[in-house]
This record gives sequence, structure tokens and C-alpha cells, in this order.
Amino acid sequence: MSFSPLIRQLIDALRILPGVGQKTAQRMALQLLERDRSGGLRLAQALTRAMEGVGHCKQCHTLSEDELCPQCADPRRDDSLLCVVQGPMDVFAVEQTGFRGRYFVLKGHLSPLDGLGPEAIGIPDLMARIDQGGFSEVILATNPTVEGEATAHYIAQLLMPKGLVVSRIAHGVPLGGELDLVDGGTLAHALAGRKPIHL
Amino acid sequence: MSFSPLIRQLIDALRILPGVGQKTAQRMALQLLERDRSGGLRLAQALTRAMEGVGHCKQCHTLSEDELCPQCADPRRDDSLLCVVQGPMDVFAVEQTGFRGRYFVLKGHLSPLDGLGPEAIGIPDLMARIDQGGFSEVILATNPTVEGEATAHYIAQLLMPKGLVVSRIAHGVPLGGELDLVDGGTLAHALAGRKPIHL
Ligand SMILES: [Zn+2]
Ligand SMILES: [Zn+2]
Repeated sequence: MSFSPLIRQLIDALRILPGVGQKTAQRMALQLLERDRSGGLRLAQALTRAMEGVGHCKQCHTLSEDELCPQCADPRRDDSLLCVVQGPMDVFAVEQTGFRGRYFVLKGHLSPLDGLGPEAIGIPDLMARIDQGGFSEVILATNPTVEGEATAHYIAQLLMPKGLVVSRIAHGVPLGGELDLVDGGTLAHALAGRKPIHL
Repeated sequence: MSFSPLIRQLIDALRILPGVGQKTAQRMALQLLERDRSGGLRLAQALTRAMEGVGHCKQCHTLSEDELCPQCADPRRDDSLLCVVQGPMDVFAVEQTGFRGRYFVLKGHLSPLDGLGPEAIGIPDLMARIDQGGFSEVILATNPTVEGEATAHYIAQLLMPKGLVVSRIAHGVPLGGELDLVDGGTLAHALAGRKPIHL
């Protein structure tokens, strides 16, 4: 026992949040109840509005309640560059680098064993978007995982006949990392991709 | 930019949760939107119901939407033992030990500098509860901090004339800890509170 039903239900519901276990959910529930009920109600309202109102941008397919997301609606972007990513979080990550081209957001990566083929992850829509035209380069920024590589490779093959520059984000040692903590595959990529130092 | 307004508002609202920063809030928002909208709506509903419905148990003052919380409503408890704690989370912690007496939940600890005197933290209500009677022992389980000790000491003095056993939870080295990592004050308490070993 120990918590009344409404508190138990709130603790259970908080556990659907990623990374939130029983103990954290308890702390969250009690802190809201003891110190910030209006904040808790604002969160409830923001959740309801977002869960009911957010769809997908009709052009890049990222999450958005507007027909066009902020990136697609922005007139001051480089319309010759298209960056293809696996999910909405990746748009945010790429934006942080200062990239200001356009995006296309896949629904994850190809996963034949799970029945996720090109249609399921939105590759035909990507092709249609590219055929609408204007891009001179398509940057494949799927994850540097086996599945992300395979997805990038598949798309690159489809794009081959279209006469576009098709590029893949570089692999290498992450900035600030220690060499002996980097996995062998990454280090091999970093070595193969070495560049002359210009002093 | 990067996220549409409803998503930005959800991310901001999630940050009121303890321990949730910008990055975690983004991950939570996008995961709910991409994978569990019904879970997100259930969370919204649980939040609304709890924020609007949960008050305080009229007997022990812990958080509860019912007049009596599960602990106060339970007829199979030891009515001679009263455990005084600083907050609802502590009831949960003490329950985990197997304690099955009664509780009284203060609103934190005495904090004269913040203007929190005995009334503000509910000490008169604690006295009234004790005067209703039946307790043979009052266990002061406020936190082992300077403020928690001061609060326990203050209550102990008020209880002195009432002819009850008044006890304080023991201080000592935590189970599983390493002696050289224990702070000096705790170790001094552990030494002073040493007990003969019966083999
Ligand atoms: Zn868009
Ligand atoms: Zn109660």
C-alpha cells in the first residue's frame, strides 16, 4: 500500500517516460504534488495538446502540428542541400551543427527481419521529394550503425542514376574522446579517412 | 527553431520534473510522440486527476485523496507506535522496513531563517494527534541532518511531560558502506552507539 490510488496511478503513468523507473517516478509524483501542482497541470495540458495535435510535416515528415515544420517553412535556407536522417531527434542534432539546408526524415532504418522495407520507412516519399527537384547534393545522415549504413547504401543506389552528389557523413574518432576508448571499427575508419595537416 | 510550437511547449513543461534537463525532456517528448501517444494521454489524465484530487490525510497529513490514507485506514496496525517523518516519501521508506505502526507527516523541518516555525510544519497538529492518545512510543524519524535533528529535539522536549517513550532512529554506518568513506560525524555516532556482540 503506502500511496493512495490517484498517487499510485500517477507513479505508474510516469514510468512510461524513457529512463524513469519506480523510484524516480515516485520522486516526480510527490514533488509535483507537494511543490508544483500548477506545473503538473501545465504538463498535463501540454501533453494532451501535443499527443492530439502533432502530426507530420507534409514535406520532410518530421513531427509538426503545422503543415510545414519550422525548417521547411523557413525561406532563408539552402534549397540545394537535402539532409536525410532517421528521426526527428536527428534534425535537432544536425541543426545544432549549424547546417541550414533542407531535411527529409525517415521512419527509422531498413529492417527486413522486422518487415520494415523501403515503403515502411518512407523511401518512396523521399524519392518523390528529390524528384520535385532543386537539390544538388543529398547528404545521407542515417546512424553510423550496421542498419543505418545499409539504409544509406540502399538510398545511394537509388539516387545513382539521378546525377546528384550523394554524400555520407564522415566516420572518425569523436572530438574529446580518448583513443584507447574508441572501438576498432571507428578507429579504422578514422585512419582510412586521415587528412594531411596544413600548417 | 527546429521543433514546432506544441513540441517546444511539451519539452518546456517536462522540464518541471525533477532531474529532467533539456536533452532528457526532448528525448521524452519525441519518444511519446513517435511511439506511445496513448501512454502520453494516460499520463496527462493521471496528472490532472492527481493534481486536482489529492489532498492530505486528515489523521497523518500525508498526501491522499481519501480522508484517511492507506496507513491510517488499515485496521491491522500497531496503534501504540507513532512514527514522525518529514514528508510523504519518508512514509514509503519506513514502510519498506516492515514497520507497521502509525505515522504523522510533518511539512518538512523547522527552519527559523525561512520563517518556518512549529505551526508552519504542523507540530501543533502532531501534538493534538498524540493527545488523542493510545500511543506508548513516539519514534522521531526526521532526517539525520542538522535541521532534522533540531526538529526531533524540539518535539522530544514537547513530549517530555507526557510520559511516553520518545525515541530517535539510530545513527551509524550504513550497511554495505566502506568505513573510510563514512563521514566523521556518522562514524563518531556509530562508535558511541556500539553494542556488545552476543555469540
Ligand atoms: Zn518539414
Ligand atoms: Zn494517514
